[in-house]
Amino acid sequence: MFSVTVRDHMMIAHSFRGEVFGPAQSLHGATYVVDATFRRATLDADGLVIDIARAADALRAVLGELNYRNLDDEADFAGINTTTEMLAKVVADRLADALGDSGLDGLAVTLHESHVAWASYERPL
Amino acid sequence: MFSVTVRDHMMIAHSFRGEVFGPAQSLHGATYVVDATFRRATLDADGLVIDIARAADALRAVLGELNYRNLDDEADFAGINTTTEMLAKVVADRLADALGDSGLDGLAVTLHESHVAWASYERPL
Amino acid sequence: MFSVTVRDHMMIAHSFRGEVFGPAQSLHGATYVVDATFRRATLDADGLVIDIARAADALRAVLGELNYRNLDDEADFAGINTTTEMLAKVVADRLADALGDSGLDGLAVTLHESHVAWASYERPL
Amino acid sequence: MFSVTVRDHMMIAHSFRGEVFGPAQSLHGATYVVDATFRRATLDADGLVIDIARAADALRAVLGELNYRNLDDEADFAGINTTTEMLAKVVADRLADALGDSGLDGLAVTLHESHVAWASYERPL
Amino acid sequence: MFSVTVRDHMMIAHSFRGEVFGPAQSLHGATYVVDATFRRATLDADGLVIDIARAADALRAVLGELNYRNLDDEADFAGINTTTEMLAKVVADRLADALGDSGLDGLAVTLHESHVAWASYERPL
Amino acid sequence: MFSVTVRDHMMIAHSFRGEVFGPAQSLHGATYVVDATFRRATLDADGLVIDIARAADALRAVLGELNYRNLDDEADFAGINTTTEMLAKVVADRLADALGDSGLDGLAVTLHESHVAWASYERPL
Repeated sequence: MFSVTVRDHMMIAHSFRGEVFGPAQSLHGATYVVDATFRRATLDADGLVIDIARAADALRAVLGELNYRNLDDEADFAGINTTTEMLAKVVADRLADALGDSGLDGLAVTLHESHVAWASYERPL
Repeated sequence: MFSVTVRDHMMIAHSFRGEVFGPAQSLHGATYVVDATFRRATLDADGLVIDIARAADALRAVLGELNYRNLDDEADFAGINTTTEMLAKVVADRLADALGDSGLDGLAVTLHESHVAWASYERPL
Repeated sequence: MFSVTVRDHMMIAHSFRGEVFGPAQSLHGATYVVDATFRRATLDADGLVIDIARAADALRAVLGELNYRNLDDEADFAGINTTTEMLAKVVADRLADALGDSGLDGLAVTLHESHVAWASYERPL
Repeated sequence: MFSVTVRDHMMIAHSFRGEVFGPAQSLHGATYVVDATFRRATLDADGLVIDIARAADALRAVLGELNYRNLDDEADFAGINTTTEMLAKVVADRLADALGDSGLDGLAVTLHESHVAWASYERPL
Repeated sequence: MFSVTVRDHMMIAHSFRGEVFGPAQSLHGATYVVDATFRRATLDADGLVIDIARAADALRAVLGELNYRNLDDEADFAGINTTTEMLAKVVADRLADALGDSGLDGLAVTLHESHVAWASYERPL
Repeated sequence: MFSVTVRDHMMIAHSFRGEVFGPAQSLHGATYVVDATFRRATLDADGLVIDIARAADALRAVLGELNYRNLDDEADFAGINTTTEMLAKVVADRLADALGDSGLDGLAVTLHESHVAWASYERPL
């Protein structure tokens, strides 16, 4: 199995609901350094899983719809805790939609919220 | 599949038995930067794999029983080479015990012994 | 000249005023991975610039007053753009106050706002 | 499942054929920081997946045949685009050949071409 | 003193002349991960050393004139070994020219050629 | 001013004397990832601060005399706390001796003891 990964980032505000979140129930924010991994069992005729420039553009477009936002104000996240793992799925699913019929076999997205914590979501395509 | 990872570290002394270890048969030491990855097929009601603070506390507690020790003096490791891969399993198994009935599906632990070498162990829960 | 650096982080929300900030004029947020560097021309009697545990505690205390906050709501920052470089100075000056008469010669603080951008402030003590 | 990873690097020149590659159709180059991961279901009698020194030597030998070369001039790559993902497979397959009958269960190789892009290939042994 | 740093990269081919370079006398290549640091004694009216977006654009423009090139073919480098330290000066000097009358006090550029080697050049402005 | 940095590592055991060290008074150990930075105002005739291979060899030789040792048993460190900052000076001074008449203007050595703590020593040559 082959994979290609590209890295970008977004900077958002949000808050969480639930006792488990402690001080993170207050409005705060995060930089998410985002790694998007594209998987494919065999390479295409050019020797690629996916063109890195195309992969980077697709990731930038998906993150651009979240970047510099307060996620508490986004209709898509009404009633949802935008945890790191939840956002990993949001980014992965939106990337899957954006890629369309790509010949890819799978996708994984990792969001690094700090140097000591990160979360991932992986799915088939 | 979702995952959440937290990072911490420990600093230990130890030595190895066996020709294969060469100069590492002498008493020396290591900083292990430890990544503990928790896997879960679906998120809980709060949108979490595991609360990052709880995950970090669990990892710190497990590492606290090894940190600042000479592993050659620990009864648990009598007759065992405390290689990086062996210690990855020790940390993973102790974390699994500490977590109890967690709803998690799996666990992986990576110990970085330097910027150019690391080892992992993964297991179901 | 000797130095010791410790790393920690904080997660905040904020917004900026001024055309130059473009989309960052909206409420958004950041994880700042913070490196605090303590400088001293000669080591103390224990062979230290500063005890790493004490340095880490001092940094955690200073970051704890900013962490999980919306900086737009903090009285200390009224009328101030809490840019990365400005916050580096805030953290450095608060650390200097907290350390008191420390025997240190200088201090530098770096805030990493992403994998591709960071800012620093350094000052004598 | 256990794994051990070692890191090394190589510095090569090459060019690509195909419109998709845009400016990378010109002769340019790359540093590939290479991670080789060795997998094994159970540890050997010494408590090892593979001796890290042996793993590092095997990786260095494989990279040594590519390092400081213009890959466009290498007979092995005639008519092939030496993309990052393709080279990950080349390194993995050559490592597999070099290891011979190793008791290992699998191998993965990741080539980092920059701080924002990398590619991997994994295979059983 | 304040500073702001932005990171980008370029991928080039080149060769060196001189016995000291050993196998690097052959045509090979490198990814340079480039950190450009802008220094200023006091912040401007917006609370900035330099706008990070402007800094990133300036660095991208300078690297864009080198990226995906064989530096052996560039007239600017005729008779010059394009070592990592030499290229750090080239990038710094071109950035200084591009910034014009910026109010900045200094500039430093670091080129990372691998995970184990990098070079820097710093100058006043 | 130009600089070149090379990275290597060593793995040692040691203990500290003094209440300030808390649990680190026990025999434990550390991996030190070591960055040696060589400074020079102007480049030599080859366009170099120092040949990276020569710099790496010099660093490896100095670390080789400490690697895989229990520093508590080394005569050179009798009565000395081998703190990270103290060892940074030891490595820097030994490197300076090894380099001899090098044309270099200065030297800095950083020892990373974990992902969250490091220490440096810099000196003229």
